Amino acid sequence: MGVILALDFGGTKLAAAVVKPGSREWLGYQRQLSPVDGDANTDLEIMRSLIHSLLQDTTPSAIGVSFGGPVDAITGTVRLSHHVPGWENIPLKDLLEKEFGVPTNVDNDANVAALGEYSFGAGQGYDSLFYITISTGVGGGWILNGKPWRGAAGMAGEIGHIVVDPTGPVCLCGKRGCVERLASGPYMAQNAKEILANQAPQSGEILRNLVDNNLKLLTGQIISEAASKGDNIAQTVLQKSAWALGVGVGNVANLINPQRFILGGSVTKAGDNWWTVLQKTARETALPEVIFEIVPAALGNDAPLWGAVALAETLLTQTGLTQLS
Amino acid sequence: MGVILALDFGGTKLAAAVVKPGSREWLGYQRQLSPVDGDANTDLEIMRSLIHSLLQDTTPSAIGVSFGGPVDAITGTVRLSHHVPGWENIPLKDLLEKEFGVPTNVDNDANVAALGEYSFGAGQGYDSLFYITISTGVGGGWILNGKPWRGAAGMAGEIGHIVVDPTGPVCLCGKRGCVERLASGPYMAQNAKEILANQAPQSGEILRNLVDNNLKLLTGQIISEAASKGDNIAQTVLQKSAWALGVGVGNVANLINPQRFILGGSVTKAGDNWWTVLQKTARETALPEVIFEIVPAALGNDAPLWGAVALAETLLTQTGLTQLS
Repeated sequence: MGVILALDFGGTKLAAAVVKPGSREWLGYQRQLSPVDGDANTDLEIMRSLIHSLLQDTTPSAIGVSFGGPVDAITGTVRLSHHVPGWENIPLKDLLEKEFGVPTNVDNDANVAALGEYSFGAGQGYDSLFYITISTGVGGGWILNGKPWRGAAGMAGEIGHIVVDPTGPVCLCGKRGCVERLASGPYMAQNAKEILANQAPQSGEILRNLVDNNLKLLTGQIISEAASKGDNIAQTVLQKSAWALGVGVGNVANLINPQRFILGGSVTKAGDNWWTVLQKTARETALPEVIFEIVPAALGNDAPLWGAVALAETLLTQTGLTQLS
Repeated sequence: MGVILALDFGGTKLAAAVVKPGSREWLGYQRQLSPVDGDANTDLEIMRSLIHSLLQDTTPSAIGVSFGGPVDAITGTVRLSHHVPGWENIPLKDLLEKEFGVPTNVDNDANVAALGEYSFGAGQGYDSLFYITISTGVGGGWILNGKPWRGAAGMAGEIGHIVVDPTGPVCLCGKRGCVERLASGPYMAQNAKEILANQAPQSGEILRNLVDNNLKLLTGQIISEAASKGDNIAQTVLQKSAWALGVGVGNVANLINPQRFILGGSVTKAGDNWWTVLQKTARETALPEVIFEIVPAALGNDAPLWGAVALAETLLTQTGLTQLS
C-alpha cells in the first residue's frame, strides 16, 4: 500500500511530508515559507508543488492536514485564517479528496499537534492531556479518553482567551488580562516596549542594547535573551508571562483534571526561570488533590505534521487498510 | 424485576427514594436532616432506617448513590466528607453491595447531579454540558460525549476554585479570588458583613434591618432578599457573585466549548439581576464564536437522587437486566 501524506498549512510556512504507515521516520520532507502577500490560492499552489516533488505521480493511501486557523473538523472546511486572506469557508478536505482521490482528514493545528504528541511524542500513554502552544498566539488542543475533544462547535482549547487578570491590559479580543495578552511572544515585546518607553534610558539597558535602542525590533525571543543576561525589565515581563500561563494551567487542572500538560511553541524556550515560575504558579492555583505534570513538547515544529500522520492513520484504521500493510 | 434504590448522602440531609426502572415518578421518598453532632455511622444508621421503611423486606435490583464529598467513582470509596466526620476512606459501594446483595454505583453529588440533569432534566439531548451548583460551596460536574467526565483522578469540575480575581479576597483554599470565594452564599454573607462593619450605620439599612443589626445572622438568602428590596450593599455583593461566576463560565466555554451550562443551588434563586449579570459577563468573557446557553437546573433538590437513578440504570444496562423489565 501507499504512503501517508501529511500537510501543514502553518500561516507563515507550508510543510509536507510522506511516511510509510507505522513508520516513525519521514520518507520525504518539504518546507517553504508562505509568501508575505500571498492568499489561499498561492498557499495551495505552493503546497501542490511540494506534494508533487514528494510523491511524483504515485498516489498516497490517505492524507492528514493541519491548518493554522479554525476548522470544522467534521466537514474538513476551513473557516478562516488569521494570517492569510482568502481561506474563508474553503472545503479543504473535499478539495484534496477530489484532487488525490483518497480519504483526507483536516483539523486545526492545536488539535492536530495534541494528537501528534499523544500518538508519537510527550503524550504517549496519557489518555487525558492538554497540549498548549505559546508563541505568536496561545492555543490548546485536548485529548480526553484517548480521543481529540473539539467541543460542541469545534472551539474547545482556547486557553489563550481565558481571563486571568481582570485589571490587566486589553487584548485584541477586547477583554482584559487574557492569558495570550500576557504570555505570547508579540505581547511580551509590546509590554516591554511600553515599560521601556516610560522609564529612564539607563533602565533596561541590556534590552535596549540588544535592539540598538530601536524598540520596534523587540521580540519575545529578545526578551528571553535579555532576561537570561540579567535585564530586570525583561525578567519582569517574562515572569508575568509564566505567571499568566501558570494561573491558566492551574485553572484548567481544577476544571478538567487531565494527567498531563504538554507545552510547545517558541516561548517555551524562554529558559529555566520561565518554567520555574510557571510550574510554581500552576501548582499553587490547582487544589492540592489535583495532580498533574507539565512537560515540554517532544516533537517541536513537527508536532502538526506528525499529528496529521495520526489523523490519516485513523482513516486507514477505519477502512481496514492497515491490515493490508 | 425489582425497583431501583436511589440514595443521597447530602452533608446536612439524607434522602432515599425508590422508582421502577424506566419510570419518572417516585414510588416512595424519604428524607431526614443529618444530626448536627453526627458522624458516618449515624448517617448510615439513619439511611438504613429510611431504606427499610421504603423497601420493607424486598430487594432492589440496583442501587445508585450520590455522596456530598470527594469519591473514587471507580471503586465507590468515599474519600471524606467536609461536613460529617468519620467518612474517611469508607468503601460505600462494597458496604452496600454486601448489605443488599445488588450492584451499586457511588459518585460525588456534582457528578451525579450532572448525570441527573442530563438524563431527566435540563440537559436532555445535550451531549456536552457542565452542571454547576452554587450554594454553600461552588462545584461542578461534566457530561462529555454523553458520559460523565470525572478527570484523571476524579477531581474534574472544581470551578469553585478557579481564580478569577488574583487581587481578590483570600479563600479557604489559600488562593485569592476563587469563584467560590466571591459567589457562594456564606462568602457573600461574609463580604456583606465586612462592608457593613466598615460603613456608617445608615448604609445598608435594609440589610441591617433584616437581621435586626445582628450581622452574624446574614446569609446568602438574606443578601438576595435585601438586594431585591433595593439595598445597595447587598446589590454590590450579589453582582460580584454573578460577575465571578460569569467569568468562570466564560473561561470554561473557551476551554471546553460545551453546548450547555446548567446551574442549580440556592444562590441561583437570587433573582433576575443576578442572572442578567451572570449571562452578560459569561458572554463577554467567551470568544464571539463560542456559542453556549446558561439555563437553570430543572430537577432542583432532587437532581442528585435522579442522578443516582441514572447511575443505577447504567448497572442494569450493563448486566442486561433492563431487557427483562
